[in-house]
Amino acid sequence: MGTSGNLSAVVQREPLRVAMSPSGVDKGELTAPQVLLIDENAHIVSEHDGKPSDESLLHLRIVKERGAGAVLHTHSVWNTTLSDLHAAEGGVAIEGYEMLKGLQGVRTHDHSEWLPIIDNSQDMPALAEVVRKTLNEHKAAHGFLLRRHGLYSWGDTLAQAKRHIEIFEFLLETMGRTALMKAC
Amino acid sequence: MGTSGNLSAVVQREPLRVAMSPSGVDKGELTAPQVLLIDENAHIVSEHDGKPSDESLLHLRIVKERGAGAVLHTHSVWNTTLSDLHAAEGGVAIEGYEMLKGLQGVRTHDHSEWLPIIDNSQDMPALAEVVRKTLNEHKAAHGFLLRRHGLYSWGDTLAQAKRHIEIFEFLLETMGRTALMKAC
Amino acid sequence: MGTSGNLSAVVQREPLRVAMSPSGVDKGELTAPQVLLIDENAHIVSEHDGKPSDESLLHLRIVKERGAGAVLHTHSVWNTTLSDLHAAEGGVAIEGYEMLKGLQGVRTHDHSEWLPIIDNSQDMPALAEVVRKTLNEHKAAHGFLLRRHGLYSWGDTLAQAKRHIEIFEFLLETMGRTALMKAC
Amino acid sequence: MGTSGNLSAVVQREPLRVAMSPSGVDKGELTAPQVLLIDENAHIVSEHDGKPSDESLLHLRIVKERGAGAVLHTHSVWNTTLSDLHAAEGGVAIEGYEMLKGLQGVRTHDHSEWLPIIDNSQDMPALAEVVRKTLNEHKAAHGFLLRRHGLYSWGDTLAQAKRHIEIFEFLLETMGRTALMKAC
Repeated sequence: MGTSGNLSAVVQREPLRVAMSPSGVDKGELTAPQVLLIDENAHIVSEHDGKPSDESLLHLRIVKERGAGAVLHTHSVWNTTLSDLHAAEGGVAIEGYEMLKGLQGVRTHDHSEWLPIIDNSQDMPALAEVVRKTLNEHKAAHGFLLRRHGLYSWGDTLAQAKRHIEIFEFLLETMGRTALMKAC
Repeated sequence: MGTSGNLSAVVQREPLRVAMSPSGVDKGELTAPQVLLIDENAHIVSEHDGKPSDESLLHLRIVKERGAGAVLHTHSVWNTTLSDLHAAEGGVAIEGYEMLKGLQGVRTHDHSEWLPIIDNSQDMPALAEVVRKTLNEHKAAHGFLLRRHGLYSWGDTLAQAKRHIEIFEFLLETMGRTALMKAC
Repeated sequence: MGTSGNLSAVVQREPLRVAMSPSGVDKGELTAPQVLLIDENAHIVSEHDGKPSDESLLHLRIVKERGAGAVLHTHSVWNTTLSDLHAAEGGVAIEGYEMLKGLQGVRTHDHSEWLPIIDNSQDMPALAEVVRKTLNEHKAAHGFLLRRHGLYSWGDTLAQAKRHIEIFEFLLETMGRTALMKAC
Repeated sequence: MGTSGNLSAVVQREPLRVAMSPSGVDKGELTAPQVLLIDENAHIVSEHDGKPSDESLLHLRIVKERGAGAVLHTHSVWNTTLSDLHAAEGGVAIEGYEMLKGLQGVRTHDHSEWLPIIDNSQDMPALAEVVRKTLNEHKAAHGFLLRRHGLYSWGDTLAQAKRHIEIFEFLLETMGRTALMKAC
């Protein structure tokens, strides 16, 4: 699932409490005591000396706009490659694959999933605002790409978010290889 | 062997009883109690609250037409890619590879295996009928592809079905990479 | 290291006794009692009900011509692909890679290794004779490819043979990817 | 992380003592007693019958020029491929990727990392001198490639050096795939 990335899971809705992976920790070596508890402003509410991921604001935005229970963010070779190649179109249309049925609410392969691509930025409040707009423009989207950066997806549960990520990773690689072979 | 898929194995021929992987369960985490027992009409005969896979009808059709003892279905990047690229020809001819000898009854690399490609559908009874016709038109085929969906293969035993799947996956990737390099 | 293949190791020189993997057994599940002991004519000398691999004659030929202590044969996507693409030239020239230094007796990357390609055949005595001629024409070769079939390499010990196989697999994939990128 | 390679870690600065992986040992099977202790001239100071890697002089040069605490060298298909394809330009510019932020001191994706490519050689003192010059010409570089050979990177600690290697491997593969798809 990529070399790095981060994840979050809603622990409580009112007031919002989100368990968030810390910044700068190898996720393969992530241990329970390292997980941070943050509020809706990404402030740490657990007694902890860690630092929440810079991208906490994006996670919180997705939780609020989508009512998601969990958010996952991955870096992979194929999602980075396609986020770059399709940037000019503003997104990738994923159509006609059986695997799309693994996305929540999709019942047929005869579905067109629009995976928006957002320009990368280090200004997290500004980026969170672009994420908010994008999610509202594309109400049916199950994920989005940050250009030359990675993939975000989410779900009601961590298991569902993981399934969504796996489906997108599979389909992006499949589309990449298919496009290459068709072009040659 | 792909991100998802399903499998079945004949437990009894008269009346037909087939052990079938349930719908919506990660196959890597499949446990014995989750396996369903179905009859020739895909009705559950085990006491169970699971739901048989939508594709049970395809498995049953293969069991009946081929006398197979086990059926496997896999989703992989390469089988999905080639199922799409060769869809217009109605199948993929796999010829001249030593690995073909791993298919039941094939004794030389100087063999041409036709792997039919069937258009994907959510109408399972209709798709099962297309599978029946395809199997009868291509009596020697050891498998088939569903377009943009995945690979089906089978065998007398689960081990043989697994070997067939591995051979097809290997050869589809090899043919894909070879075609790409020849085209460039 | 590929989906299948076979391996042999010299146990005694006079008279020749070679431990040989049996036919039709998954090498990942190979157990000591399954290993066969064969003589210089590929006849089984161990008390055993197994069947020596069809390719035993090729292993024996390599043992005799090269004085090898062990022979390995692998099927991989990249060795199969390149055995096909370079068949018309009769071999692949591997030049200028640091990894070549891992081949016995090679002391610099500034080395040209000729990996001959032999047409595949099911006539093992005839194929063994072609192997004999090829080995004599290319005295410095550390391996050869069978077209659309796989790679053979060998060494004084099983560890050296394994190292040679790994080096060839690495270099064939590297050359394949480099050629593709240069062509595009 | 590649089929072979080597690693070193500074144990003491004054006088310099560096723990160095021995020559000709599979790194996956490296055990503590096999690690050598060398001085600033690559002479063994531990009581040991091993032989330091031929490339010890390059490690020592990096330790001196960069003040590195650890140096890693890897062979991979993608780093070898790109070291060859970009050799004429003398290096690879890696720009605009989020993953660049994992390199020590880089705070934004809006960064251009120049990864110099040095011609391979078996003359280690001469090559160490080219490495010295290259490091001084490219003060900000976090690594370099040896052509058709492999990647070097380093860090204050072994963990940081490992992170740098992983980032470069990820980005080289991503750039390779992206370039291929853009060209087709």
